[in-house]
Amino acid sequence: MILIRALEQRILTEGQVLPGEVLKVGSFLNQQIDTGLLKEMGEEIARLFSCNHVTKVLTIESSGIALAYAAGVALGVPVVFAKKHKSSNVDGSVLTSQVFSYTHKQTYNIMVSADYIRSEDTILIVDDFLAMGNALNGLIDIVGQAKAELAGCAIAIEKGFQGGGDALREKGIRVESMAIIDSMTDDSVVFRPQGT
Amino acid sequence: MILIRALEQRILTEGQVLPGEVLKVGSFLNQQIDTGLLKEMGEEIARLFSCNHVTKVLTIESSGIALAYAAGVALGVPVVFAKKHKSSNVDGSVLTSQVFSYTHKQTYNIMVSADYIRSEDTILIVDDFLAMGNALNGLIDIVGQAKAELAGCAIAIEKGFQGGGDALREKGIRVESMAIIDSMTDDSVVFRPQGT
Repeated sequence: MILIRALEQRILTEGQVLPGEVLKVGSFLNQQIDTGLLKEMGEEIARLFSCNHVTKVLTIESSGIALAYAAGVALGVPVVFAKKHKSSNVDGSVLTSQVFSYTHKQTYNIMVSADYIRSEDTILIVDDFLAMGNALNGLIDIVGQAKAELAGCAIAIEKGFQGGGDALREKGIRVESMAIIDSMTDDSVVFRPQGT
Repeated sequence: MILIRALEQRILTEGQVLPGEVLKVGSFLNQQIDTGLLKEMGEEIARLFSCNHVTKVLTIESSGIALAYAAGVALGVPVVFAKKHKSSNVDGSVLTSQVFSYTHKQTYNIMVSADYIRSEDTILIVDDFLAMGNALNGLIDIVGQAKAELAGCAIAIEKGFQGGGDALREKGIRVESMAIIDSMTDDSVVFRPQGT
């Protein structure tokens, strides 16, 4: 609860609402990372999923990597990140999926080497933002292709009013967001009440 | 020394030398991240630069982010990462530089919001790889544009035979690499002796 309040307070004081329902939190979550806040969020995520026998954390480059790493350290497991662009360092068998980016208005392929997500893995997906859920659905698709088990998804900031998180919850997927925004305008951000 | 030996051993057992002098270490450094190893490397970097009053760690997306975060946590300072692609989340005044990627054979712009690197900052640059030094030179250029102080550069794996690290050292820039490869072929990797 203290963590949720701290994160909500940072969103209120430092977040900027930009046109197109974009929330800019570059001063502490992406671009610039408040390492203390992310460490706490990583530890909270590890606590929430402590009974799930997670074997790997999966995220997507770039802005999910720091939080995924923080969760991976706290859980004591490796982190795997999906790449958005074909790299000369990804070869061999790959798992791929398509993601439409609402922020960048384009569809791109995400890919992970098949060596790093196996059927015996239990995967926790971590990302910085959840809006429509497009990136998460791509990652969930990859977990399914690998026939791995999905423990759930952990997110820093969910834009609840865009519906992606609740659509996943309705499918029975556990989604834990450190802060959920129910509505947002230029001069106000309203959070969904959460209690643990 | 124990850390250096552990990293060198991982390179020898899991690294793959690909055509074009590419060393693939996707199983523990990029793509998949060994969080325990990176945590140790972050703590070693913090120890090496403990007297430099570092105020921020600067890196470049994507594969530098996890190590930069590990160093930032250990130093107790924020991490800033330069973006390679124009994002709708970067606005206002930006610091930019050009980088030629030897791996991807293309030149790209890197950019950081001018809000996050200020003249009063002392910057430690962290990255996963150092080869020709092109990415580091771009980041050093950005630190210079901001008129910030440069504490130095900390790297996981330096390809010493490509000369970028030694060229920086000759300019008086402190470069600390956890492992330095002096030569590498399909079936052998030779490390530069390092002792502290």
